[in-house]
Amino acid sequence: MTLVVQKFGGTSVANLDRIRNVAARVARHVRAGERVCVVLSAMAGHTNQLVDWVMGLDPAHYDPAEYDQVVASGEQVTIGLLAIALARLGIPARSFLGWQAGIRTDDAHGKARIVSIDPTPLRRCLESGIVPVVAGFQGIGPDGRITTLGRGGSDTSAVALAAALGADRCDIFTDVDGVYTTDPRIVPKARKLDRVTYEEMLEMASVGAKVLQTRSVALAMRYKVRVQVLSSFEDLPGTLVVDEDEIVETQLVSGIAYTRDEAKVSVVRVLDRPGVAAAIFGPLAEANINVDMIVQSVSRDGVHTNITFTVSRADLPRAKAILEGLRDAVGFERVDADDGVAKVSVIGVGMRSHAGIAHRMFATLAEKGINIQAISTSEIKISVLIAEEYTELAVRALHAAYGLDRT
Amino acid sequence: MTLVVQKFGGTSVANLDRIRNVAARVARHVRAGERVCVVLSAMAGHTNQLVDWVMGLDPAHYDPAEYDQVVASGEQVTIGLLAIALARLGIPARSFLGWQAGIRTDDAHGKARIVSIDPTPLRRCLESGIVPVVAGFQGIGPDGRITTLGRGGSDTSAVALAAALGADRCDIFTDVDGVYTTDPRIVPKARKLDRVTYEEMLEMASVGAKVLQTRSVALAMRYKVRVQVLSSFEDLPGTLVVDEDEIVETQLVSGIAYTRDEAKVSVVRVLDRPGVAAAIFGPLAEANINVDMIVQSVSRDGVHTNITFTVSRADLPRAKAILEGLRDAVGFERVDADDGVAKVSVIGVGMRSHAGIAHRMFATLAEKGINIQAISTSEIKISVLIAEEYTELAVRALHAAYGLDRT
Repeated sequence: MTLVVQKFGGTSVANLDRIRNVAARVARHVRAGERVCVVLSAMAGHTNQLVDWVMGLDPAHYDPAEYDQVVASGEQVTIGLLAIALARLGIPARSFLGWQAGIRTDDAHGKARIVSIDPTPLRRCLESGIVPVVAGFQGIGPDGRITTLGRGGSDTSAVALAAALGADRCDIFTDVDGVYTTDPRIVPKARKLDRVTYEEMLEMASVGAKVLQTRSVALAMRYKVRVQVLSSFEDLPGTLVVDEDEIVETQLVSGIAYTRDEAKVSVVRVLDRPGVAAAIFGPLAEANINVDMIVQSVSRDGVHTNITFTVSRADLPRAKAILEGLRDAVGFERVDADDGVAKVSVIGVGMRSHAGIAHRMFATLAEKGINIQAISTSEIKISVLIAEEYTELAVRALHAAYGLDRT
Repeated sequence: MTLVVQKFGGTSVANLDRIRNVAARVARHVRAGERVCVVLSAMAGHTNQLVDWVMGLDPAHYDPAEYDQVVASGEQVTIGLLAIALARLGIPARSFLGWQAGIRTDDAHGKARIVSIDPTPLRRCLESGIVPVVAGFQGIGPDGRITTLGRGGSDTSAVALAAALGADRCDIFTDVDGVYTTDPRIVPKARKLDRVTYEEMLEMASVGAKVLQTRSVALAMRYKVRVQVLSSFEDLPGTLVVDEDEIVETQLVSGIAYTRDEAKVSVVRVLDRPGVAAAIFGPLAEANINVDMIVQSVSRDGVHTNITFTVSRADLPRAKAILEGLRDAVGFERVDADDGVAKVSVIGVGMRSHAGIAHRMFATLAEKGINIQAISTSEIKISVLIAEEYTELAVRALHAAYGLDRT
């Protein structure tokens, strides 16, 4: 008997009609002979309301354990309501809060990590033919207090439960109907992928494709959980995220992703001596600022160098302040910052065995007159930094150049 | 060191400003050297919203355990928010859900009874100088599922916690500032009572004074918890509900209560034979319909009798249907129903030792031309049933007759 974990996000349970719709959906799977364990988010907007209340009382120094107590109440509402809606359709169901489902986490309130899941209560429930409806996003810490996994954590809950239960598949129902070769709002010819590998999905998630939370993909990859991304509003197959060996014929390139979340920082005319990179990046790392796409250009005088890198736009003001504080100790002329940039990435496991992928990327961009400001690569991804105004042009040109356009 | 349990109802925590107000109030007590354990309801209106959602999905056959899962989320919000508001004022606080506070109940979902409270977690918290903020209205059943105590159950939670912790006092903050000799909306000369006995409060609660839930008063009486009813919006002493021996000089009559929640039923021309009362009241009891104020009048023919009694207005349609079904088996002419009645009660522990209380009641009503349709008495209460239109007149006249008017 197939066992499926099905996760529905906030927009899928935003009101009673949608909850009834989810119940009907789950009922179809149960009647088709599948065993189903459901994972839910809070009603869309509800968690924001709860967060606003916390911030309204104490925006800066609130106790994160109390924050968790407040925001974890959102899923408690939807799981109870769905259990009632399922019973109304003749499907026996029972709701479980995170702690009732045996989801134990560390004590990092607001961004807790799942430490272990005791699958006994859910297994017992499934074996009696009852559909467990589990609150996503939450668990219980070592001291018996409620924890939450951070925004979008319900995906992680679903994948972790699928792993703990040994489920055949984890369906993530969302407001898009699958993973696309690129953003269909930019490229109308974008195609929905039938399958994509964990590695590709991970790279896509990390460079702007917002379909799945990075953590949940990493977890799925680690425990080999087959994940399906599909629409909660249409009854169509979505995209399967699977191990590479489940994909018979891999494409060279699976997708083009982009993000406007980064900003470029240049430290200009740095005295080029050993240890200078460490002197710059050490303090940034200490301040928890992630640095990406580092380029060091040799200067004409052979004495000075320019160091360019990207940080997330949210971190830019802090990064600038830290760097200005280093000017005397490190020795440089000035710090330039530019948030009018975009990072465009070409992703595909096929890259590993095929040369020429990078060349085609650079040639395509050159043809359109787009200047590359920085480059970074991984085994299955090439990213370039370009001026933000060229984003759509670059994505469309690359999508066509790698043969991804729908015909 | 004085230990006080302080309970704030839904209107007292209806929004962030009011939650700040509650925090300030609790902080004053803590700074004055008291140890305080707080019990909260959900934001006013929030529980109704949650109940409406449940009813919207399945008004008739919803699983009461899922109902509890949904509605218990309301207090989870307010306790976390108050803990944050208290911390903001420099008062260390920690929220506790019912199960985290060790509140165990039976499994009667929707109307559970508290079975036991393990005071260890709250005691430990209080001993470390941290204010526990406990979710009222909820507990955990024997199977580890969330239970609720029924509407107004937060009062019961507060009194039960005060008993378990051996608190010196249980303050119930509400939107009135104490217990009055009668409803001040009807009698502007009503006086606030400084003290009232458990027995009187119990009778008042059972006949319409909505200040405290009957169950919480019974619990307070059983465990001798000193309860104070006071306003959450003004900083004034309220009414103490205490043991009779704490009241030096008891008044003959402490208050006049009334309720319009009852309806009168008359079974007319019943064949008067042994067992006829059992034949009528048995089926009503089986249908869980409470019957009050029974009057049997002897008929002129010596063969037939009329049996008159009251039921709650909500039960009237069901009661009529059941009685109609008994016509052939019992033998009577017809069933008359009248929901234009009110029950007015005179309450006071002084009655036990003083004659003439009932006489003064009947004489006062007769003087105003008010006909008494039925009478019931307890050791410390006399209730009469009158036509609804005379309610205010009767209450005002009795209030004056027993010397309760403020001078």
